[in-house]
Amino acid sequence: MQSDLAIANQVKLKPIHEVIERLNIREDEWEPYGHYKAKLSLDLIDRLADKQDGKLILVTSINPTPAGEGKSTVSVGLGQALQRLGKKTVVALREPSLGPVMGLKGGATGGGYSQVVPMEEINLHFTGDIHAITTANNALSAFIDNHIFQGNTCGIDTRRITWKRVLDLNDRSLREVVVGLGGVKQGIPRQDGFNITVASEIMAILCLATSYQDLRERLGKIVVGYKLDETPVFVRDLNVQGALTLLLKEALKPNLVQTIEGVPAIIHGGPFANIAHGCNSIVATKLASKVADYVVTEAGFGADLGAEKFLNIKARVGNLTPNAVVVVATIRALKMHGGLDKQFLVEENLSALEKGIVNLEKHVETIQAFGLPLVVAINQFGTDTEKEIDFIKSWCARRRIEVSLTTVWANGGRGGEELARQVLATIEQDNSSFKPLYDLSASIKEKMTHIAKQVYGAKGIELSAVAEEQIKLFNKYGWDKLPICMAKTQYSLSDQPNLIGRPRDFIIKIRELRPSIGAGFIVAMTGEVLTMPGLPKEPAALKMDLDDQGRASGLF
Amino acid sequence: MQSDLAIANQVKLKPIHEVIERLNIREDEWEPYGHYKAKLSLDLIDRLADKQDGKLILVTSINPTPAGEGKSTVSVGLGQALQRLGKKTVVALREPSLGPVMGLKGGATGGGYSQVVPMEEINLHFTGDIHAITTANNALSAFIDNHIFQGNTCGIDTRRITWKRVLDLNDRSLREVVVGLGGVKQGIPRQDGFNITVASEIMAILCLATSYQDLRERLGKIVVGYKLDETPVFVRDLNVQGALTLLLKEALKPNLVQTIEGVPAIIHGGPFANIAHGCNSIVATKLASKVADYVVTEAGFGADLGAEKFLNIKARVGNLTPNAVVVVATIRALKMHGGLDKQFLVEENLSALEKGIVNLEKHVETIQAFGLPLVVAINQFGTDTEKEIDFIKSWCARRRIEVSLTTVWANGGRGGEELARQVLATIEQDNSSFKPLYDLSASIKEKMTHIAKQVYGAKGIELSAVAEEQIKLFNKYGWDKLPICMAKTQYSLSDQPNLIGRPRDFIIKIRELRPSIGAGFIVAMTGEVLTMPGLPKEPAALKMDLDDQGRASGLF
Repeated sequence: MQSDLAIANQVKLKPIHEVIERLNIREDEWEPYGHYKAKLSLDLIDRLADKQDGKLILVTSINPTPAGEGKSTVSVGLGQALQRLGKKTVVALREPSLGPVMGLKGGATGGGYSQVVPMEEINLHFTGDIHAITTANNALSAFIDNHIFQGNTCGIDTRRITWKRVLDLNDRSLREVVVGLGGVKQGIPRQDGFNITVASEIMAILCLATSYQDLRERLGKIVVGYKLDETPVFVRDLNVQGALTLLLKEALKPNLVQTIEGVPAIIHGGPFANIAHGCNSIVATKLASKVADYVVTEAGFGADLGAEKFLNIKARVGNLTPNAVVVVATIRALKMHGGLDKQFLVEENLSALEKGIVNLEKHVETIQAFGLPLVVAINQFGTDTEKEIDFIKSWCARRRIEVSLTTVWANGGRGGEELARQVLATIEQDNSSFKPLYDLSASIKEKMTHIAKQVYGAKGIELSAVAEEQIKLFNKYGWDKLPICMAKTQYSLSDQPNLIGRPRDFIIKIRELRPSIGAGFIVAMTGEVLTMPGLPKEPAALKMDLDDQGRASGLF
Repeated sequence: MQSDLAIANQVKLKPIHEVIERLNIREDEWEPYGHYKAKLSLDLIDRLADKQDGKLILVTSINPTPAGEGKSTVSVGLGQALQRLGKKTVVALREPSLGPVMGLKGGATGGGYSQVVPMEEINLHFTGDIHAITTANNALSAFIDNHIFQGNTCGIDTRRITWKRVLDLNDRSLREVVVGLGGVKQGIPRQDGFNITVASEIMAILCLATSYQDLRERLGKIVVGYKLDETPVFVRDLNVQGALTLLLKEALKPNLVQTIEGVPAIIHGGPFANIAHGCNSIVATKLASKVADYVVTEAGFGADLGAEKFLNIKARVGNLTPNAVVVVATIRALKMHGGLDKQFLVEENLSALEKGIVNLEKHVETIQAFGLPLVVAINQFGTDTEKEIDFIKSWCARRRIEVSLTTVWANGGRGGEELARQVLATIEQDNSSFKPLYDLSASIKEKMTHIAKQVYGAKGIELSAVAEEQIKLFNKYGWDKLPICMAKTQYSLSDQPNLIGRPRDFIIKIRELRPSIGAGFIVAMTGEVLTMPGLPKEPAALKMDLDDQGRASGLF
């Protein structure tokens, strides 16, 4: 089997201006970044304001397992299939974070014959958006510590600083640190910690901002900590929202590349789907829907996290309505949800499949609860047996759910044509009656309960004493009308990673709340949520290399 | 007076492909980064290997003072003047570090009508080179800590890790930190610290590497720390030199922009001139000399630091020979070297000037000691009086030193024509007999003594007990044949910042040595050398902003 990089390298890419021209983007509305990448101007959205939006297809999945689901691969493959069927299509995806690329993943741009390219550049630095966010985030930290060092006129309580530093790396050693050591000239000692950059509130803000003005306002609203009397300190109190906006000037412009079959791909923004909302940027999705008739986008992790937040948070801010949802699953992953160990996945096991398919069932119900039509996409593997496939098909038929097998990894767009036809038919029927699952006017507790019950299938929620106190404080500050961004394990519908399949009768425990006022949501922390990953014993980086001619290897 | 940004914004920039075409660079030898920036392929150096090199002009200066000398401004202005005189010229400068831009400087791309543009983009993120270095540096830190966490097969002594993390920010709070806190799952607690990225050995390596292969070898040779028995641990022992090289793939390609008058400018690399060698990259200088007949380049701080290292380190590695040196001074700065306080600089003061000109005298002697012809450039200010100017002129005449007044800030290339003519005449005479000041075969102590006596005018050097021990160790490891990179205050010829002018009878105290084996030099630390700057009470960032149309302000 060829590596993704080897496959990507065989493709003759179109010069990016050819991709641009097909989208009727004007010369002054884009800038090249190398021969195969471009940044698009935000002015495009204004110029095309009156143009009807393209149809929006949201790709989500079951809870991820170590078996792999291939959501990005299916998203790219579906885009390619739609193009093969003659539809003017753009895929709109998230930017890969370098941390996981160097750690476990080795690459995050789809796979096989359904990739976005140049995969190597997209995976490494790309157009610098994430580096700009790292810089803005850490500049803010430096401004905070300098403000305190220079006299602390804002009266920030150094024990109550909530703003953390970030790096776009997997680095467990930075999770908890003490900074400001070394004596009077080096600052004020205090506890701090580093998150991975995609967990920065600035990443979430970039993805929800609709203009430079909106970006600047949101940055000013970030809460960096509290004073002794527990009143919040905002970025605007430090007067650095202008500098932070300036640092993000280029980063707010969506990036255009192409898929391996030449479908335009807008890759922009990539917030964590636990601590943040896990979707690509609103400006990218909007821009895609202005230049294409069909937009394929994805949301992070399973439908309980990424899709829920796409629909309750991003869609609300961006005034977006998906026309259809694709729920990706694999037979292998469903068997794992049925309790089968990874080593036995290659063998046919109908009882594990039957036991595990309830995970898919719950996610399907969730999408239906949002009033959205859906298609299940089974990302086929060579080891899937005919009986297993038949089981899935009849399971879906009984529930009147459209289902389609795809082979987009091996066959590119051709392997997704059946799925594309079903999606087109579903959009044609226009059965959508989309509505977010909760009203913003509900209380913080009500909103969290809604999500826990309707999306996770929990009996209810339980708040820690800390969370109860925080709600009182947040009500006082007027933050109770914001949507909720649940920070929960991606591996289970519950807050316990080992509860696979479709757990029932569980309670979601809310440990702590975090106000992301700039992003415009309240993060509810359940269980232990890791915001700075660690490296494995053998990081993917050990295999990476560059030869004397500047050719990369070891990305996959 | 208009701000630099305002002046830069009035210029109609040439599309970068026009700049490229004038240099006879082929279409497959460059990539655009936006409309006004490009990355150049290293293949160009090979293709033009047989072409005769252009003449190399090195710009250096007296010891910097708070009055400002304008070395970058003169470098750009001289390049523009040479172009006005019909010479095919390229300026080759360093990339600005974001830390000082957000802190005190507000910009570092020359000034007035002698700037490189687009100044805003060059000052902020540029083409991402420095971010790539930050990433590679910190990925290495993560690999080190992960190696220890996962079993430490290399036997690294956690108290002897010398590799530090970096950020491209001014952030004093990160100078001394403790990482790895939080218990068994978060790593191993140890002391660490952050430098500013331009102080990273990886920046020095990038600037001295002559090919991808050389880059990879140098990265492998970095010493990250020591084992319990004090034997060194190299990057190649961790087997991550390939991944680090891959992360620097784009960063090694020189960047092309233009000056305000359309002179091609290659801006690439920017190591600190104290802890590192303070020059732009060898590949950039080489490439510039292949595509132009005249190359103007600069080295950091005064001639005691940047020029000394250009001539003893960079020139040796890159096999470069400057054809002429320009020593920049201002009357204001010379008066400060004569002991005058900044507030009195606007008044004529011949005795302060006479007292301070000895600083210039020493730097002139140093350049002559290298066997190089030179021209003194007086960067003129409106407050300079006729008598002061006459004094300088006759001082130079008595010593048969060429001197020229320039007004490049106000008048661009036109203000540097006299200087350009003198430089051309100097090159024409071909009096160069360049030779580095010491042989590599000399001992570490001999090499340090050479620099201290011949370049600083010291009586000699004094080594701490630590440094004495280190020399024994370094001899054992075969590191004694490397050049020396002195880390010394830039404000004085001595190791004490307040000893301005031309101090005599002083001893240079060597506190500690640091092996930069990847870069290929031994750093000798004198006095206190700050490798992570702090922010001032009112950082330049407070004035920066971006308006609703995406227009920047507050850079200067």
